[in-house]
Amino acid sequence: MMPKKFASLLLSGAFKAVSRTHVYPQCVAKELSNYHPSAPCFSRFFSSGKGEGKKVLGVFYKAHEYADNPEFLGCAENALGIREWLESQGHTYVVTSDKEGPDSELDRELPDTNILITTPFHPAYITKERLAKGKNLELLVTAGIGSDHIDLRAAAEKGLTVAEVTGSNTSSVAEDEVLRILVLVRNFLPGWRQTWEGKWNVAAIAYKAHDLSDKVVGTVGAGRIGQLLMQRLKGFDLKQMLYYDRNSIGEEREKELGATRETDLDTMLAKCDVVVVNTPLTDQTRGLFNKERISKMKKGAYIVNNARGAIADVDAVKEAVESGQLGGYGGDVWNEQPAPKDHPWRYMPSQAMTPHISGTTLDAQARYAAGTKDILDKWFKHEPLPKSYYIVREGQLASQYL
Amino acid sequence: MMPKKFASLLLSGAFKAVSRTHVYPQCVAKELSNYHPSAPCFSRFFSSGKGEGKKVLGVFYKAHEYADNPEFLGCAENALGIREWLESQGHTYVVTSDKEGPDSELDRELPDTNILITTPFHPAYITKERLAKGKNLELLVTAGIGSDHIDLRAAAEKGLTVAEVTGSNTSSVAEDEVLRILVLVRNFLPGWRQTWEGKWNVAAIAYKAHDLSDKVVGTVGAGRIGQLLMQRLKGFDLKQMLYYDRNSIGEEREKELGATRETDLDTMLAKCDVVVVNTPLTDQTRGLFNKERISKMKKGAYIVNNARGAIADVDAVKEAVESGQLGGYGGDVWNEQPAPKDHPWRYMPSQAMTPHISGTTLDAQARYAAGTKDILDKWFKHEPLPKSYYIVREGQLASQYL
Repeated sequence: MMPKKFASLLLSGAFKAVSRTHVYPQCVAKELSNYHPSAPCFSRFFSSGKGEGKKVLGVFYKAHEYADNPEFLGCAENALGIREWLESQGHTYVVTSDKEGPDSELDRELPDTNILITTPFHPAYITKERLAKGKNLELLVTAGIGSDHIDLRAAAEKGLTVAEVTGSNTSSVAEDEVLRILVLVRNFLPGWRQTWEGKWNVAAIAYKAHDLSDKVVGTVGAGRIGQLLMQRLKGFDLKQMLYYDRNSIGEEREKELGATRETDLDTMLAKCDVVVVNTPLTDQTRGLFNKERISKMKKGAYIVNNARGAIADVDAVKEAVESGQLGGYGGDVWNEQPAPKDHPWRYMPSQAMTPHISGTTLDAQARYAAGTKDILDKWFKHEPLPKSYYIVREGQLASQYL
Repeated sequence: MMPKKFASLLLSGAFKAVSRTHVYPQCVAKELSNYHPSAPCFSRFFSSGKGEGKKVLGVFYKAHEYADNPEFLGCAENALGIREWLESQGHTYVVTSDKEGPDSELDRELPDTNILITTPFHPAYITKERLAKGKNLELLVTAGIGSDHIDLRAAAEKGLTVAEVTGSNTSSVAEDEVLRILVLVRNFLPGWRQTWEGKWNVAAIAYKAHDLSDKVVGTVGAGRIGQLLMQRLKGFDLKQMLYYDRNSIGEEREKELGATRETDLDTMLAKCDVVVVNTPLTDQTRGLFNKERISKMKKGAYIVNNARGAIADVDAVKEAVESGQLGGYGGDVWNEQPAPKDHPWRYMPSQAMTPHISGTTLDAQARYAAGTKDILDKWFKHEPLPKSYYIVREGQLASQYL
């Protein structure tokens, strides 16, 4: 079960030694075909106070007794496995998991940091205030997907670049969505709990257990993860696979995935036995699943949301699950992370919630660690990143956040 | 989420009124093309002590407070929804969930019972002794799939017919297998438990969470359920989908499912990250996954067994999960059901166990209730059953049990 391919890529020194001299990047980049012609130039590239070496700051969750596994790259102890490589290039690498409050290690290290690496799994909320504190910041890398823990508009105003490892954990998240759909629809979890509680009550599970086959599933958003979800559900003999997205995925792809597009969200929701959320958190999607919208859904339908917790309204979800308007709600994302001990989603009935884990399997860690290294390598060499990695490109916000 | 199609079929009176006069069935049946020519004749057909009406005895799990849902057909209270129909035909329908020990209601009702309906979910163990007690028995129907709770050889010796509703819950079980694979491979359950225990520890989950994509899955058995599993896994970008079966599923079907046949079980097991058991429990498969066989598997691989608990050795599985030879074990079947409170599989690490539920979703209940009604209807009319329903056909054991 070892994601050896990526681990070995990471450790093999496959990335060549890079120039440590920084030149005005646009001058280099203008030569490169996929460079955005309107990206502004910023004088910060001349003003790094660290000479040739950069200070890279990484914020990851602590693994403590679990850090022994050398493939566990995503934790603070193993820190993406890039320390040796970074230091051999003359850079400094500071790693912490302490990110709460103005006296956190994150805040103390920020002022002279050039490159900040954060993850959605242990989100360091990079507010306007923190961006102001980080006056030497150039690049913010999200090891994973989803950079909404960063104030992207403020980062854009400062002319910074925010990049994420697009695609690194899309299949991990899509798999996990199938898991949560099945867990909810089949009423699996109360059955599991019975076993280690010494119980045996088939009826208490079966009375509201359903098959997924012959049901209608809809995804809100049909980007990378949405499409991988539809691909995975194709074999399940669904009655219908629907998607709502501002863009069509094209007739050919629809046929391939057995999917049908709906152009009105509420029309789609009313048809679905299961709704899966696959959109980024933006001003448009914040609070999308509020009381009113949930009331338009089929009674007893399920929501799976591995996208971002704040896309759903906390109380509306809790009340709908309690009343039976929702058959259940599952996801690994919360409006606040870590979720406070008294978060209502922890204790509502028919929940398939976990801490934020779906995109941080060992396989995904290997991919986003390799992707982060690639981003840093290109940054040091003043090479452009793969286009899809940019969330903010030297002050220019990606289209989905506009 | 309502399996309306089947529920309405069941309630619609779609099955015509039937003759209540019993004639020697072979005389009728010989006229019918799909009758097995070597099936013996038995005089019990002349000796029903009940005149025209039959006594039908059903053994189901009690639902208590969960019985309110009229679609919950599989419980003792709703008893497959066939009471009105049976009684309108002049038959008697006795239903119980009391099946343990020689003084159980089952044992008290057996002597004059003609037709016995049992299920794998609340198995009434029909031993040689009980078959002797049921001297008026003609037909034993399994509402579901898997009749190993019946002493099939003894039933055959008595010239009885044992029938099950083949196909009624194959897709339910296959779906549930995908669920258990994902739950184990992705280390989901400790994460769920954290939420309602007020915890937040991503590392404690992620350190041994994997993706299913790019892994090797093998099914032992490629009958109906095995093939439905492979169909469902096709979209998951596996490295390889393998199957071991005495019969090839054919080149075309292999291509359709993206599956490759292995002709040696141990050779296949050594390649698999996940092994799924999809064989009936027979003399050949009892204890198949013993210590020696598990030791031939890849270290850290997972077993999912929704087939029958006794196909795996209880202690061998427990020790392998504890030592890490197995990454985890999941299934809804136990060597003894209900599983005793101290069953070691309840408390071993990395288990995805539940009571026997995978084949008794509301959708599956609708299908096996309709199928049981169909079996009874045909039996009363002396019509042959669909060939695949026969486990013992008037003394003749189905080939997989020979």
